[in-house]
This record gives sequence, structure tokens and C-alpha cells, in this order.
Amino acid sequence: MNPTFELSPALRTQIARAENALADALPPDNTPPIELRRAMRYAALGGGKRLRPLLTYAAGRALGYAGLELDAPACAVELIHAYSLVHDDLPAMDDDALRRGRPTCHIVFGEAMAILAGDALQALAFEILARSPSPQGKLMLSTLGHACGAEGMAGGQALDLAATGHALSLSALEHMHACKTGALIRAAVRLGALTTGADARALEALDRYASAVGLAFQIRDDILDVEGESRILGKTAGKDAAAGKPTFPSVIGLDASHARVAELTDAALDAITPLGKQAAWLDELARYVAYRSR
Amino acid sequence: MNPTFELSPALRTQIARAENALADALPPDNTPPIELRRAMRYAALGGGKRLRPLLTYAAGRALGYAGLELDAPACAVELIHAYSLVHDDLPAMDDDALRRGRPTCHIVFGEAMAILAGDALQALAFEILARSPSPQGKLMLSTLGHACGAEGMAGGQALDLAATGHALSLSALEHMHACKTGALIRAAVRLGALTTGADARALEALDRYASAVGLAFQIRDDILDVEGESRILGKTAGKDAAAGKPTFPSVIGLDASHARVAELTDAALDAITPLGKQAAWLDELARYVAYRSR
Repeated sequence: MNPTFELSPALRTQIARAENALADALPPDNTPPIELRRAMRYAALGGGKRLRPLLTYAAGRALGYAGLELDAPACAVELIHAYSLVHDDLPAMDDDALRRGRPTCHIVFGEAMAILAGDALQALAFEILARSPSPQGKLMLSTLGHACGAEGMAGGQALDLAATGHALSLSALEHMHACKTGALIRAAVRLGALTTGADARALEALDRYASAVGLAFQIRDDILDVEGESRILGKTAGKDAAAGKPTFPSVIGLDASHARVAELTDAALDAITPLGKQAAWLDELARYVAYRSR
Repeated sequence: MNPTFELSPALRTQIARAENALADALPPDNTPPIELRRAMRYAALGGGKRLRPLLTYAAGRALGYAGLELDAPACAVELIHAYSLVHDDLPAMDDDALRRGRPTCHIVFGEAMAILAGDALQALAFEILARSPSPQGKLMLSTLGHACGAEGMAGGQALDLAATGHALSLSALEHMHACKTGALIRAAVRLGALTTGADARALEALDRYASAVGLAFQIRDDILDVEGESRILGKTAGKDAAAGKPTFPSVIGLDASHARVAELTDAALDAITPLGKQAAWLDELARYVAYRSR
């Protein structure tokens, strides 16, 4: 097993920044409908790696910007991620009872409230982004909408459902994940870049970085599902294989999966080399994605 | 029973306009993920009153604008409405098998696909609005996001769930519906007005109109649930009462419900009087909402 990788204090500070911004963005749970607001806060504030907001902050910093305007897109991508986990965990979907070491949203609040909490988190993501002062706001909103929809995250989840119990080619598996997890990871990076008014060349470099990191993230997830322990993962290990889901280890083997993660990480680091030292956080996050233990 | 009300040819033409715009906006269902795209089209193109896009077009016209820029907000509000019906009909929510005279989305495509189709329809609504050229785009997007979230439609649905089997005061019932159906109806009108660059006075008049129409719409719905026939409604009659949901007829009685609809319709027509003859469509829609038979 690879050595595990812990984030630097600088990035851990950015996690705290994202969590503060999220706590402010979410509606307080002391006014009705209380249960809905509790479920939203439970789903969005219950820990997690915060990879997507970190990528937004890191992309902004790579282009020389670290200001408050990054908080809205950072929150927006994390709220979308949180809603997608709530819906993915539902009995009709992946039927998961454990997430981030805690009972899933529908276990605590019931299915109906979990569906609504997911729906409201999605709406909140767009609302927050629409209220942000960025002059690129409309482009950011269409980028996020596209990343969430039939050609992005929801589409990837539909491909995943259709693939369960079936063999997939490597390219079909990669396409599924480019939609299911890749689209939002690319959006997280792009929104950070758009906040700074990035030029086309920087956007292209960051897109290449994000595509590689997104796929490496998913392969690492599949590896951890085989090699990891539920206790550390905070979710049920071995679940994908048990559910008959095609995974990278099942399609290309474990060794090739490790090798592919390393290759993608090199590609990601290569893409951001022209950005120089300002891209240090992006560099660190690419390594973290590849060698994390949960 | 009141005389029923059919829409004029002019507004029926606007229904066709909305349906063409929706058909163009939805992803074609001949590329993967095909099932998701089919479910999205099934949910959004299966008929319905198209009240919300009609209100958007009518609000634009009331302020002297009838151009193509109204199509994006008209589609956006109807996509949100369509997604909300798909999720509301789910077994964990209202558990409905019939909608617009056809099997509901989850009956045809399964629960998982229905959840995803709703999610993707919501994302598409924001994406379409974000791509529209209106200079008021960000304000329109935050308006729509707010109308869909915990303080709007999703919040109202949560209040509805919590109220099932309980007695509600009239004001609590009105607040629930102001969120559950009223918020999106108000947004439909406001988005049409914002497209035209309406001033604060016009916006205020249209808000008063939309609030009254939204509440009248819901009371009429409750009346039809008691007096209507499933065959004409295209959904199961008597269902709210059977489910123990508080309704206007159950809280204030049928006669008072009819009287309240008439009163709200007067208030709506009163609000738009200053807009003159250009508000004819809004006038017609207020009467239609009050006296429709389905």
C-alpha cells in the first residue's frame, strides 16, 4: 500500500474557511421548516474531505487571487456535492446507511426529508452563486448547471445505475466517471479560475489538471473500496464489488489501477507547471487525491 | 359549481410556444444516458396546464415585451415545476401513480431514475437561465434559486409533510402554500417582469398579483380535489383528504373556499389595473386559475 498523505496546515486552514462559509450559507435550523433545515445542515456540515472547495481556492490562488469572492463558488460546489451524496445514498439508489462515519441523511431524517434536503441544497448552491458579486457570474452559473445535469453528474449517476451488474470497457468506465465525479471536480477548478478572470490559456491548463485529478480521484476511490477499512473510510468498504458495480480494479486490476493513478497525477502536475509556485496548493491536492487513505 | 373557464386562442398559442421552447431545451433522448433523457422529457413534455410559463409570457407582455428572451425564464420555471412533480410523486413523498392522466415518472422509469431526472431537470433550469442573454440574469437566477429552496418550494413541501395528519390554522395553511406553490408562481411572474427591465412599482404590482393568484390556485386545487373527477383532473381526486392533508375546504369549508378564491381573484385583478390593456393575459390567467376544471 502506498504511503498515505495528509494535507498541509495551509490547506487545513482552507478547509476551516470552507466550513465557515458553508455554515454561514446554510439556513439556520431554528426557524421552520426546522426538520428540512436540520437535514440540510446535517448533510453539508458533517465533515468530509472538502476537496471541491479546496480545489476552488487552490485554482484561485494559482492565478494570484485568494479573496472573499472565492467563498461563493467554493460553497456552491460543496453544496452540490453534499446534495448528490444525500440522493445517492437513498434506498432507491445506492442504499447506504453510513457516510463520513455517521448514519446517512435518510436514516436520520427519513427518505422524504432527505429527498427534499438534497433538492434544497441544489437550489441553494445556485442561489449563492447568483448572489456573488463576480462579473463572470452568469458563466459560472451555466458552468455549474451543466456540470450537475444530464451531461454531467446526474448523467454519470444514470450511467452508473445502468452499468451495475454489467461488464464495462475501460473507456466506458472512464466516461462514466468523467461525468459522475469528474464534471463537478472540473467545475470546482473552473469556478475558482473564472472568479479571477482567468484567460483562455490558464483555463485550458486548469481543465487538463482537473480532468486528470478527477479521474485519479475515482480510481483511488475504487482502490480504497478494495484495500481500505470501513473504519477509516467512514463508509462501507467493499460495497461496490458486492453491488456488482464495475470498478477500475475489476476492469484493469489493482496494480494497473495504482499505476494509472500515478500516471494521471503526473499529467495533472505537468498541466500546472506553467503556473509556477502559485500553483502549490493545486500540486498538493493532486498528490493528496492520489495517495489519500480515505 | 362555477362555470368552467377555457383559455383564449392567444394564450393557447403561448402554451404551444412554451412547449416548443421546452422541447428544444431538453436534451435529445437518442444519446446516452438515454433512460435519464427519456425520463426528463417524459416528465417535462407530458402536457400540463403550463401555467407558470404562461405567467412569465403574460408578465412580459403586460410591460410591453413579447420577445424571445422570455423563452429561457418560461422554460426554467416549468422545468422546476416538472422536477418538483416528479419528486413529489415518489413513493417516499406523496406516492402517486397518476399524473396528467399518465403513469408517474417513477412508475415508468423506476425510482432511482425518477430521482435523477428530477435532479437533472432542476440543474437544467438554472443552466438555461444562466445561458440567456438578459442583463438581469444574475438577479433572475437568485430569484429562482430562492423560490426553489428552503424558504420556497422545498420548504413548503417540508411543511406539508409535517402537517399531514395534523390540524393547521388558516394562516399556517396559507403560509405553507405561499411557499409550496406560491413561491414558484411569484417567481414565474417576476422573471417575466425582470426580462423587460421592469421598475420597482411595476414589480410590486406584479408581486401582489402573483401572490393572490398563487393562493387562489392552491385553494382551487383543494376545491377540485373535493368536487372534481379523476378523469378530468388527470390525477387521483379525493387524495388529499384521504391522506389526512389539511386543505382549505377542510379548514374553512367549501363555500368559504369558493368565496376566498373570488376575493383573491378580485385582488389580483385590482393589482394589475394600473398596467392597462397590456395586462389582458394576466387578467385572463387570474380568471382561469380561479375557475378551471382541472
